[in-house]
Amino acid sequence: MKLATYKDGSRDGQLVVVSRDLSQAHYASGIANRLQQVLDDWNFLAPQLADLSAELNAGRALHAFAFEPGRCMAPLPRAHQWVQALAYPAHVRRLRQALGASGEAPLTQPLLLQGASDDFLGPCDALALPGPQSGLDFGAQLAVATGDVERGADPEQARAGVRLLALANAFSLRLLMAAEQALGLGCVQSLPATAFSPVAVTPDELGEAWQGGRVQLQLQCAVNGRRFGMGEAGQDMAFDFGQLLAHLARTRRLRAGTLVGSGPVANAGTELGHACIADKRAVEASEAGRARTGYLRHGDSVRIEMKNRAGHSVFGAIDQDVAMPA
Amino acid sequence: MKLATYKDGSRDGQLVVVSRDLSQAHYASGIANRLQQVLDDWNFLAPQLADLSAELNAGRALHAFAFEPGRCMAPLPRAHQWVQALAYPAHVRRLRQALGASGEAPLTQPLLLQGASDDFLGPCDALALPGPQSGLDFGAQLAVATGDVERGADPEQARAGVRLLALANAFSLRLLMAAEQALGLGCVQSLPATAFSPVAVTPDELGEAWQGGRVQLQLQCAVNGRRFGMGEAGQDMAFDFGQLLAHLARTRRLRAGTLVGSGPVANAGTELGHACIADKRAVEASEAGRARTGYLRHGDSVRIEMKNRAGHSVFGAIDQDVAMPA
Repeated sequence: MKLATYKDGSRDGQLVVVSRDLSQAHYASGIANRLQQVLDDWNFLAPQLADLSAELNAGRALHAFAFEPGRCMAPLPRAHQWVQALAYPAHVRRLRQALGASGEAPLTQPLLLQGASDDFLGPCDALALPGPQSGLDFGAQLAVATGDVERGADPEQARAGVRLLALANAFSLRLLMAAEQALGLGCVQSLPATAFSPVAVTPDELGEAWQGGRVQLQLQCAVNGRRFGMGEAGQDMAFDFGQLLAHLARTRRLRAGTLVGSGPVANAGTELGHACIADKRAVEASEAGRARTGYLRHGDSVRIEMKNRAGHSVFGAIDQDVAMPA
Repeated sequence: MKLATYKDGSRDGQLVVVSRDLSQAHYASGIANRLQQVLDDWNFLAPQLADLSAELNAGRALHAFAFEPGRCMAPLPRAHQWVQALAYPAHVRRLRQALGASGEAPLTQPLLLQGASDDFLGPCDALALPGPQSGLDFGAQLAVATGDVERGADPEQARAGVRLLALANAFSLRLLMAAEQALGLGCVQSLPATAFSPVAVTPDELGEAWQGGRVQLQLQCAVNGRRFGMGEAGQDMAFDFGQLLAHLARTRRLRAGTLVGSGPVANAGTELGHACIADKRAVEASEAGRARTGYLRHGDSVRIEMKNRAGHSVFGAIDQDVAMPA
């Protein structure tokens, strides 16, 4: 099934079930109002939502209405945990090289970064530029929402805890990031906001494309309407979502509604482009001596979407403008 | 007023108002069931809770009952944001020296570390030891819960966003921490859990002790019943809570229910002891060539409390045992 959260003026919005083809929606209010409720009580509520989803897909839901992505908040407008991984070694390697790091540090374990989860952006919400000289970048990736995952869960157990998948766009301020990372405490100011796709979907909606904790589909990214990347999300992902979750759960259990992102998709080769600007700039600097692609500016737009093998959008599109600072 | 959350089998517990002397409590269910609700809608709900608090303090609340800290969850059992600062330069300096860092890096800006907020411990909940060789430490500190804070808020504006204060105990796994920090991505596995005091209080409950975003009272810490520290929380805190929040809000707004901790209290001198084991070990290593104090082990207990000038407990005590790994 596919779930979304409609804006209603509240902090958590209103849960809706969305048809497979993203054309129709139906309020879930008879079952649950908020997605966090569903994740908290999945075994009881998810089957009821699945029934409504089946009715909707069959064209039999009585109070269905046209689905409008522009009315969506993030599926979870706020969460209790958001962790971004760096699961694509090519991305890590390129950024290290661009920073002048010597040697080739092998990626022997998942790299995880605890992020803010109090204030996610909806798929069509503009991001207000936090300042002209901050190096605003997007970061297109897949994310999973979990149920409860026990401490010490192995990758297979953790994989079974994946309830939903969505696309995420983790904005970053690249010109603030290196200084923050040098402090050894992660990123606080340099990760200003994260947006999510209109809908979150259960793994079965991906069919054969969901394999061993990876999604074998292309992630399409465009900046100002021009193709920026169409990376294969399942290829070159060194750690699958089960491994990422198990690493996170090594010393503590994860509670329902935990969100984990893969980090920007990056294939080993560069033919399929990039899922963030820093990745492209690093390749340019390496090949031509200097980065040509600029960071995001006021008036720019970013579009992120993933289509299945039949060419249909799975999650709807993240489609955001960069606005002037408030 | 003083607020607590009673265990009721649910993930968010049941909000209660607690009398100033911590002897009596009253369910807030006629006003709000969960503390997050109150923080979401403070201006509407807090006055109603304040009225109930006044009745309770006057001995006029009809359905009051004896307050039992052992029945408490954390005041916010889960939150949408938890950030731990390192606001005491003495602590940072000692730990850097213990790690063999050369030079004296001045603390020119707040150090902030995004933490997990999906699963807090109650004040009397045992922590299951995540493994024998992990270097389990406690970290006694003050924390604030905020309302909404605008992006770019200055320290004074941010200070006005402080709704509640509580004590926090941020456990850490010191033997995992250095390796995690070396990756530049902060701490994920090395911060296994955080516990909070039985009650959270509005700043007015601190009276004159709440001054310019600092709390001018001693934080008492004991391990296995023996005094470990009684540091002056308001002294040697280089950045007040307003400055910490403003730093956090530089590139993004903070949403209601954001929790920010000061990091372990550490005075410039060591006469008043320590608020975490690593701090004490660093001083021992510096003075005697080697650290003598061991990390926490199975069966150890940690007690953290803060009393006002009249000798009364402000927040109730955090009183936790270290249990065998599950």
